[in-house]
Amino acid sequence: MITVTTLPDLRQALTRFPKPIGLVPTMGYLHEGHLSLLRTAKNECATVAVSIFVNPTQFGQNEDLSAYPRDLPHDLQLLEREAVDLVWTPVSAEIYPQNFQTWVDVEEITKHLEGAQRPGHFRGVATVVAKLFNALQPQMAFFGQKDAQQVAVVRQMVRDLNFPIEIVVCPTVRESDGLAMSSRNSYLNHQERQAAPILYKALNTAQTAFQSGERQANAIRQIMRDTIKKESLATIQYVSCADPDTLLEIGGVIDGRVLLSMAVYIGKTRLIDNFLIG
Amino acid sequence: MITVTTLPDLRQALTRFPKPIGLVPTMGYLHEGHLSLLRTAKNECATVAVSIFVNPTQFGQNEDLSAYPRDLPHDLQLLEREAVDLVWTPVSAEIYPQNFQTWVDVEEITKHLEGAQRPGHFRGVATVVAKLFNALQPQMAFFGQKDAQQVAVVRQMVRDLNFPIEIVVCPTVRESDGLAMSSRNSYLNHQERQAAPILYKALNTAQTAFQSGERQANAIRQIMRDTIKKESLATIQYVSCADPDTLLEIGGVIDGRVLLSMAVYIGKTRLIDNFLIG
Repeated sequence: MITVTTLPDLRQALTRFPKPIGLVPTMGYLHEGHLSLLRTAKNECATVAVSIFVNPTQFGQNEDLSAYPRDLPHDLQLLEREAVDLVWTPVSAEIYPQNFQTWVDVEEITKHLEGAQRPGHFRGVATVVAKLFNALQPQMAFFGQKDAQQVAVVRQMVRDLNFPIEIVVCPTVRESDGLAMSSRNSYLNHQERQAAPILYKALNTAQTAFQSGERQANAIRQIMRDTIKKESLATIQYVSCADPDTLLEIGGVIDGRVLLSMAVYIGKTRLIDNFLIG
Repeated sequence: MITVTTLPDLRQALTRFPKPIGLVPTMGYLHEGHLSLLRTAKNECATVAVSIFVNPTQFGQNEDLSAYPRDLPHDLQLLEREAVDLVWTPVSAEIYPQNFQTWVDVEEITKHLEGAQRPGHFRGVATVVAKLFNALQPQMAFFGQKDAQQVAVVRQMVRDLNFPIEIVVCPTVRESDGLAMSSRNSYLNHQERQAAPILYKALNTAQTAFQSGERQANAIRQIMRDTIKKESLATIQYVSCADPDTLLEIGGVIDGRVLLSMAVYIGKTRLIDNFLIG
């Protein structure tokens, strides 16, 4: 495994590896969710490249950039064990040098859900992903379904800007009690950790209702809300039943696939989760 | 020479050509300025690709999109004669399909000069150039100094988004009387054509003053204005003496290289020109 930090070192290292190159972009503090992405990449690509970069521009002013968990030595150990070929760990000063002023804006689908709650978040995501794509020039890139709107935004950007890259989406990896794996789970204390699977329970309850024939989007949203409200440590930020492509809320009857998603505070920790159903 | 229209045809055609690939992006109606770009590309690259696309998103609502001159058969004839390898002539519906919503914004340096006069122009330019870069994946791309701010914007975008592409800038090609070659020169009637070299004369007069020791930016701008005012068909939109990187107007004394530039109406035709001096 080769680990590089600077862009020139990355460009030089890339010449040594065969194509197709599969990129797994991460913010580090790796868990089984990340590992499933790179194992999928390993199956599909001649070279697997992982980037580790906590991207400051996707954090809002009052968000958890400085608190975001980091453990590079442990991450590298995990990646070594998975026989990853190339790891890029850029520093912020090279990604956003003085006088940096170019942004990639995906407009419509960033207005909803996470984008509505976190202004500027997806501008930061789209910009850094465009930079990672240009720096690493992968043929495939791997993202987790856990960040459903991120997947939609990246796919829209790839289509709109003609990146010659196939986006592969891997299923959300969960703890045994259903909690979606997330680096932010490390913020939870013991009691909060016990409460956190409520997101999964709410999604499950809604899915069961759907499978039993419930097709009213309002009813599905209410089922999720009602489930979450049973957990005293949980505070709903949003609950959504939306078109999986446009991310617009479904008004009346569900017809076809829908994205059930939510952002819920467990104590002070903001968690997100989603199911794609139908 | 291979001419393709659709993106899938382009991608397939590209696999046949050796690298480095040099891209010359154009809006067609080719003149000697374009030909000098592709001759330079021919010297430096194994493959020369030319795109012809009148990009609607870089035209303002009251600008000349529909009137912009087009002559694809003649363009293809010229390119064939120059032994260009690959020509891409996409249609607008494939470049901007329904639901297109991703834009590349270069922020600071687009606030001045052309960007100030043509809101949204450089958003359209940066977005289409990013798309051309991703679609053709050239190692080098060739632009004319005639569009000085466009060069600065593309360079900034390439740096900021980590495109692995070398930007090569070629000198402005001029008619024998000094008028900078431009597809828009075709708008000029005979009398206007006689008046049009006033931009070149103004730049020349300012350069001569600079070479004689004039270092006050205000004086240099005034010299350009005074020269243009002698031509009754000419109306100044702006005259500038600016830092060539930031494009900020120079306040006091010129120290180092400066970009002298201007936009001038000759009748109803808007012409631009510039000198890089010092």
